[in-house]
Amino acid sequence: MIDALTEKRETLKPTATTTMLQDLETPCLVLDAERMERNVARLRARLATLGVGLRPHLKTCKSVEVARHVMDSPSGPATVSTLKEAAHFAAAGVRDMIYAVGIAPGKLAQVLALRAEGVDLVVLLDTVAQAEAVASASREAGMPIPALIEIDCDGHRSGVRPGDTESLLAIARALGQGAELRGVLTHAGGSYAARGADALRQCAEDERRGVVEAATALRAAGLPCPVVSLGSTPTAHSATDLTGVTEVRVGVFVFFDLVMAGIGVCRVDDIALSVLATVIGHQRDKGWILIDAGWMAMSQDRGTAKQAVNQGYGVVCDLAGQAYPDLIVADANQEHGIVTVRPGSEGMLPDLAIGDRVRVLPNHACATGAQHRSYHVVRGASDVVEAEWPRFGGW
Amino acid sequence: MIDALTEKRETLKPTATTTMLQDLETPCLVLDAERMERNVARLRARLATLGVGLRPHLKTCKSVEVARHVMDSPSGPATVSTLKEAAHFAAAGVRDMIYAVGIAPGKLAQVLALRAEGVDLVVLLDTVAQAEAVASASREAGMPIPALIEIDCDGHRSGVRPGDTESLLAIARALGQGAELRGVLTHAGGSYAARGADALRQCAEDERRGVVEAATALRAAGLPCPVVSLGSTPTAHSATDLTGVTEVRVGVFVFFDLVMAGIGVCRVDDIALSVLATVIGHQRDKGWILIDAGWMAMSQDRGTAKQAVNQGYGVVCDLAGQAYPDLIVADANQEHGIVTVRPGSEGMLPDLAIGDRVRVLPNHACATGAQHRSYHVVRGASDVVEAEWPRFGGW
Repeated sequence: MIDALTEKRETLKPTATTTMLQDLETPCLVLDAERMERNVARLRARLATLGVGLRPHLKTCKSVEVARHVMDSPSGPATVSTLKEAAHFAAAGVRDMIYAVGIAPGKLAQVLALRAEGVDLVVLLDTVAQAEAVASASREAGMPIPALIEIDCDGHRSGVRPGDTESLLAIARALGQGAELRGVLTHAGGSYAARGADALRQCAEDERRGVVEAATALRAAGLPCPVVSLGSTPTAHSATDLTGVTEVRVGVFVFFDLVMAGIGVCRVDDIALSVLATVIGHQRDKGWILIDAGWMAMSQDRGTAKQAVNQGYGVVCDLAGQAYPDLIVADANQEHGIVTVRPGSEGMLPDLAIGDRVRVLPNHACATGAQHRSYHVVRGASDVVEAEWPRFGGW
Repeated sequence: MIDALTEKRETLKPTATTTMLQDLETPCLVLDAERMERNVARLRARLATLGVGLRPHLKTCKSVEVARHVMDSPSGPATVSTLKEAAHFAAAGVRDMIYAVGIAPGKLAQVLALRAEGVDLVVLLDTVAQAEAVASASREAGMPIPALIEIDCDGHRSGVRPGDTESLLAIARALGQGAELRGVLTHAGGSYAARGADALRQCAEDERRGVVEAATALRAAGLPCPVVSLGSTPTAHSATDLTGVTEVRVGVFVFFDLVMAGIGVCRVDDIALSVLATVIGHQRDKGWILIDAGWMAMSQDRGTAKQAVNQGYGVVCDLAGQAYPDLIVADANQEHGIVTVRPGSEGMLPDLAIGDRVRVLPNHACATGAQHRSYHVVRGASDVVEAEWPRFGGW
């Protein structure tokens, strides 16, 4: 309710006069459009070789402007994680979306309203109870809601297990009572914990095999399965064969982040997102520099803590976006970041004075982005802010 | 820039028709006003006995309505953690605020603008460089900016060490060149890691002694020190003597949270904030219930992971706000929460069907609140939503 008004003002706002990074209020979110475009081009080239389409997940960006850089066309296709995202992107002209979180029956009225506006919004489910609710809502509305059946390719979250054909067919048949069976979908979330190129390739193949086998089982039972959808940023950058797959869903690839660098699917200098911060203090005897970006600006995602290199709350860069060697935000309070050299490393504390500015690369682009209301867009090492792109949040 | 419009629409919005918790879109934030009022009354009674004033920290609520429940009067006093909060609460009539994060020189223009509007906004600092910048900006504006010197009572973050009288006086004298020395401030952030009543009382006494000694040193040098400010929710609930202190700053006490319950300064059923969520799936062989509140709705704060009882991403309650025994959100993705019985506990998985609703208590009220745009206000076990109170975010 509260956010209805927000959406109306979230249009592209080019910066009126020349704004520099030095002029921005801190903390704020900075997007390097050059890195973003390189990341998108890299994955597009990869998927073209594999002969499969891209359905970007817009939960990472929550921004119409960024979405237009990653989608095939302004009308999609796209993936969303909330109905708020679906409504927001529908208002911006996106017409082909998968809502890739298991549907709650109470949300079907909103799904039907968006479909009535001409949006091909597809829901996801993995139980007969959900399928019956979707079929029933479809019958009542006289409008078949399309649904994908979620497949649990690696046991990390939700979905029907590969090989559980009984459950798969029971769900498909329940959908048949008024809804539309659109296909199958999986997400190899377990790939985030994979280590090494071989393990990643195996995750990608497990993801492919799990969802393709489910599609085969449906077709063998005489049921339709036009969509065979999979994806995660690590597997999309590791798969060598996507036979039988119709589309790849990926979100974080557009910005990348330290978790992805730790997995090895990007380099630290591919990361397009950073938080601009100002030095507000020192504790020189401890080797600490205090900045005004704490966990509110960085998020509390500590995804690299489980990786080989713990990046704390983020890697500290100069204003041009180049990382200082081994300099991290080691600890954080709500609005304070404590910058130190990584314990045990060879890094030196740079000479940063009160008022100097740094940029901090995030552990997890989705989480850090969500703490901010807009992107300040720069290009490469330039400190000219070319535009401010709004982003939305909430549900 | 983007949020200038947001502020205008953030006024009290009573729910027009009777709304029930069952009617709300999920996930969303629920505030039990009965618990909130009990928490505020408890601390007020405590501070009255100790003979010291309350300057609530509004970074926890970021809401004008909640602020009015915790402040002495609609004009304050209050504490804020960002200039966005200062501007927002100033627009709502708050006239007496401390911005309790070390000042960056680039923010002084905004401070002066708020002061010119009649807001007694006080800045915080702990270096001569900041004091010189504040004095210089004061001289240029012909308006002395009042400043507090931060004292580092427990080594956890920023501030001048107690006993470092040389630094303290150097900062005070730099302020004397045009600014106003208002006093000293400390925050016993280390108390979050204290275990047991004795340790908490010791933290409270260390906090008091550190800041009072600094005030004494300033006065001994013939300098003014009208304000002697301290506070953290654990120490405010543990202090037995606040001699020499003029005010206590506390934020999370208004809602409490699982970290505070783990420290022992509240009970789980004092926690006034929860996230309403809907059941969207089961993995019955694993004992998992999936809900539509993931880390985006709960935040990624895992503050209880270091405590005796790890509450995962939150404790799961029924719709009336009563906790199911040992039921927690054990893991989370962006929009998925995985609910399980706490490993090793005696709890039983409740019989929750697709579409059923639960409420999840947060680890950290400040972090979870920040993920949402409004509070849905209920009272005790009632499921009637009495009001929707907006909250703001960003910088």
